[in-house]
Amino acid sequence: MHFSVILRILGLLLMLFSLSMLPPLFIGWIYNDSHLEAFGYAFVITLVTGFLIWAPVFRVRQELRTRDGFLVTVLFWAVLSGFGALPFMLHEHPAINVVDAVFESMSGLTTTGATILTNIDELPKSILFYRQQLQWLGGMGIIVLAVAVLPMLGIGGMQLYRAETPGPVKDAKLTPRITETAKALWYIYLSLTVTCALAYWAAGMDLFDAVGHSFSTIAIGGFSTHDDSIGYFNSPLIDAIAVVFMLIAGINFSLHFFAWRHRQLGHYFKDPEVQAYFIILGGVSLIAMLVLSVTGTYSLGKSVQYGVFEVVSIATTTGFSTSNFSVWPTFLAYLLFLTSFAGACAGSTGGGMKVIRVLLIYRQAIREVTRLLHPNAIIPIKLGRKAVPDRVGEAVWGFFSAYVFIFILLFLALIATGLDLPTAFSTVASCMNNLGPALGDASLTYAELPDSSKWILSFAMLLGRLEIFTLLVLFTPMFWRR
Amino acid sequence: MHFSVILRILGLLLMLFSLSMLPPLFIGWIYNDSHLEAFGYAFVITLVTGFLIWAPVFRVRQELRTRDGFLVTVLFWAVLSGFGALPFMLHEHPAINVVDAVFESMSGLTTTGATILTNIDELPKSILFYRQQLQWLGGMGIIVLAVAVLPMLGIGGMQLYRAETPGPVKDAKLTPRITETAKALWYIYLSLTVTCALAYWAAGMDLFDAVGHSFSTIAIGGFSTHDDSIGYFNSPLIDAIAVVFMLIAGINFSLHFFAWRHRQLGHYFKDPEVQAYFIILGGVSLIAMLVLSVTGTYSLGKSVQYGVFEVVSIATTTGFSTSNFSVWPTFLAYLLFLTSFAGACAGSTGGGMKVIRVLLIYRQAIREVTRLLHPNAIIPIKLGRKAVPDRVGEAVWGFFSAYVFIFILLFLALIATGLDLPTAFSTVASCMNNLGPALGDASLTYAELPDSSKWILSFAMLLGRLEIFTLLVLFTPMFWRR
Ligand SMILES: [K+]
Ligand SMILES: [K+]
Repeated sequence: MHFSVILRILGLLLMLFSLSMLPPLFIGWIYNDSHLEAFGYAFVITLVTGFLIWAPVFRVRQELRTRDGFLVTVLFWAVLSGFGALPFMLHEHPAINVVDAVFESMSGLTTTGATILTNIDELPKSILFYRQQLQWLGGMGIIVLAVAVLPMLGIGGMQLYRAETPGPVKDAKLTPRITETAKALWYIYLSLTVTCALAYWAAGMDLFDAVGHSFSTIAIGGFSTHDDSIGYFNSPLIDAIAVVFMLIAGINFSLHFFAWRHRQLGHYFKDPEVQAYFIILGGVSLIAMLVLSVTGTYSLGKSVQYGVFEVVSIATTTGFSTSNFSVWPTFLAYLLFLTSFAGACAGSTGGGMKVIRVLLIYRQAIREVTRLLHPNAIIPIKLGRKAVPDRVGEAVWGFFSAYVFIFILLFLALIATGLDLPTAFSTVASCMNNLGPALGDASLTYAELPDSSKWILSFAMLLGRLEIFTLLVLFTPMFWRR
Repeated sequence: MHFSVILRILGLLLMLFSLSMLPPLFIGWIYNDSHLEAFGYAFVITLVTGFLIWAPVFRVRQELRTRDGFLVTVLFWAVLSGFGALPFMLHEHPAINVVDAVFESMSGLTTTGATILTNIDELPKSILFYRQQLQWLGGMGIIVLAVAVLPMLGIGGMQLYRAETPGPVKDAKLTPRITETAKALWYIYLSLTVTCALAYWAAGMDLFDAVGHSFSTIAIGGFSTHDDSIGYFNSPLIDAIAVVFMLIAGINFSLHFFAWRHRQLGHYFKDPEVQAYFIILGGVSLIAMLVLSVTGTYSLGKSVQYGVFEVVSIATTTGFSTSNFSVWPTFLAYLLFLTSFAGACAGSTGGGMKVIRVLLIYRQAIREVTRLLHPNAIIPIKLGRKAVPDRVGEAVWGFFSAYVFIFILLFLALIATGLDLPTAFSTVASCMNNLGPALGDASLTYAELPDSSKWILSFAMLLGRLEIFTLLVLFTPMFWRR
C-alpha cells in the first residue's frame, strides 16, 4: 500500500471538494438566503483538513497501483460524504443531526436520491442547490469510476470493458489513464447536462429548477427541489424530456464517447447491452401501461404517461416521480422495484446490478438448459460476435451471488432494527440499487426510520455504488497483507 | 422421445401407486373409520387408469434415454399428485375440492408438508395415515431421483456425484442403474424409518403416531397427525429424537450407503458438504438460542430446546414445530426462512438449493475476491482434495440464478393474486424449498388463500422438488425437437 500517495490524493480531493461549497454560497446570495455562513464554515473546514492531509506528503512521487485503487475509491465516497454532510448540520434550515446529514450527503454523492428531509419546497435555495450539485458531482465521479477504474480493477466482470475504455491503456498504472479519460468524459457529461437544462428551461421550468433537475437527471440521482418531484410541474412535455434524458444517461458513457468522437449513432443499436436495456424497459412499460389501464387506476392516456415515466425512472434507478405510487396495484410496485435490480447500463451513472450482468446471467442460464439436452456440445457465451471469456462469466456470477447475499444480510439487519417487511425490503433494494424511493414507512421520507436503520442504509448506498467488491475487498485480511 | 416406453412406465407406476390406497384402508378398518369406500374407489380408479395406459404398450421393449428421464421424472410427481388427491376428495372427511386436494397431495408427495387442512386431530385415522404415507413414498422417490437420476441428467452441477453414486455406472441407459440403486437405497430408507419409529414409540408416542411421524421425519416431510405437530407431545426426549433423525435424513444417502456397506462412520465427517451442513446448523442454532434468551422470549433452557429444534426443523426443510413461531422476534423468523434456501444436503430427502451448491457458490465468491487482488493467479475450486470441474461450477451458478429468478416470478404472481408481502414471501419460499410452514395469512394453514395462489404454490412445490431445471427444460422448444 502506498499510503503517502493515497493521503496526497485524499488531501487534494478534499481541497477540490471544498470549492463545491462556493456555488451554493453564490446562489444563496442571489436569492437572499440567510445563514449562508454555514457554507463558509463548511468550505474552510474542508479546505483546511484537506491541506493538513496533503501538506506533509505533497512532495511524494509514487505511481498508484491497482490495489491502491480500491482504497482511493472507497475513501473518495466515504470521506466526501462525511464532509459533504457539514452544510446540512451547520445551516439552520434544515440543521439536522449527524446521522441524517451523512445519510443525505451519502444519498446525494452516490446518486441514490433517498431523502430524510420533508417540506423540501420550503428549504433555502442554497441548500436545494447544494443537494442537486452533490448528485451531479457524485455522478461525475461514478462515470470515471465505472468507465476507467472498475474495468482496471476487474470488478464483477467489468474487465470486459477494458479494451473499449477511452484513453491510453498501457499498464497497471492508474493515474495517467484516469486523468485522460476523465477529461473526455467531463465534456460529454457537461454537454448532456447543459442540453438537458436548456430543454427543461424551454419547456417551462424556471432557470433554477431547470439547472437543478438537469443535475439530478444526468446523474440518475433523483433529488428534486420540490416535494412532488417532477410531478410538481404537471407537464407531459417536461415528463417526456425527463424520460429522454434518463434514457440517455442510463447508457454506457463509453458509447457516448464513441458517438461523439466518430460522429455516428448506429453503434448504439448494435450494442447488445443497449438492446437488452431497451427490451427490458419496453417490456416492463408495456406491462405497466396494461395493468394501470385494465385495473382502471388511470385513463388510457394517463396510464401511458405515468406508466412509461415511472418505469423509466425506476428501472434506470433515477427515482423521480410524477404520480402517487401508493395507489398503484401492489404487484406493479414490486415489479418495478425488482426491475431496479437490473438497473441501467454499465459505465453509466445508473445503479443496480447493470443490464450487461443480467444479460450475461440470462445467457448462461440458457446455456445450462441447452447443456442438459446436449451434454457434449461446446457452447460459448457471445456478446454480439465476440465470445465472452470464461473468467468474465465467473466474475459476473460471483458478483451476482455476492449481491444477493449482501442484500439478504442487510435485509435481516434492517428487520432486526424493527422495520416491517415492506419497508425493509424496499429500502434495502432502493439504497443498494442507488434508486431512492421506497415503500412502507419510508414511502414519503426516510426521516421516521430509526437511526440504526439509517446507518445501515447509508452503508448499503456505498456498497451498491462501489459495486460491492470494491468495499468488500477492504474487509479481507488478504488486502492488508504485504 | 420414446413415448411408448414412457407410457409403459407411467402405467406401471400408477398400478403400483394404486396399492398405496390399501394400507390406509386396513388402518381405517382397525380404527373403525367410516367412509372407507373412498380408498376403495381411489384404488380402483388409479389401478384401472394405470392398466389402460400400460396395456396397449406393455410389449414395447426400448431403453430409456437421458432425455426421456426428464419427462418420466416430471410425470411421476405430476400424475401421482393428481391421483393421490382422490381420497381427499372422495372421503367425507375432509371432502375438499380439487384445488385443495391436489395441493395437499402435491405437498405430501413432494415432502413439502404445507397443509390446507384444519382440525387435523379430528380427521379419521385412515386419512391421517394416508397423508403420512404420501410423504414417505414421496421421500423414497426423491432419494432415487436425487441419488440416481439427477446426477445422470446433470441438473445444477449434480454430475459431481456421478462417480460416487452406488450401483453400476456404464452408459446413458437409465433403467438398470435406477433399479439397482433403488434397491440399495430402499433398505437404508426402510431401516432408518423403522429405527426412528421404534425410538418415537419407546419415548412415549403410541404406535400409530410413532409410525406416522417416522414417515414424515425420514422423508423430511413435516406432516403430523396433530395440529400442534411435535409440540403436541410436549416431550424434550421426543424433540431430541426428532432432531437426531432430521439431521440424519438431511445427509446425502450416498454417504449412508457407503457407511452401511463399509461399516464405518469416519467418512461422514470428512465430507465437505456434511461439514458445511453442521457449520450452518450450528451457527444458526447459536444465533437462535442467543436471540431467544436475550430478548426474553423464553428461559435459557427453553431457548435451547425450542431454538435448536426449530432451526434443525426449518434448515433441513422438515417443517415440524414445537413452539409458537409467531411470538418469536421477526428477525429470527426471517433468518430461519432464509436458511431454508440452503436446505439439506444433496442426495437427501431435504429441499432448498442444497448445502453443496451454497458451499460451491461461497467458494467461488471467495475466489473472485482473491482474483481482484491477484489477477494472474490460477485458483481452482476444491472440495476436499479434489478440484471441482469448471463445468460443475457453471451449472451451479446457472441453478442459483434460475432459482432466484423463478422465486421472483412466483413471488410477483402471488402478489398479483392479492397476497400481502409477508404471506407471499414466506409461502413461495416455503413451497419452493419444500419446507411447509409459512408466515402471515398462511401461518396456521394455507386454507384461506385464494385458489389461484394455491395452484401457483402447488406448481412451486413441484418446481422445487424437481430442482427447477427438470421441469423448466420441458418448456423449451429444444426439448421437443427431433
Ligand atoms: K437514484
Ligand atoms: K418439508
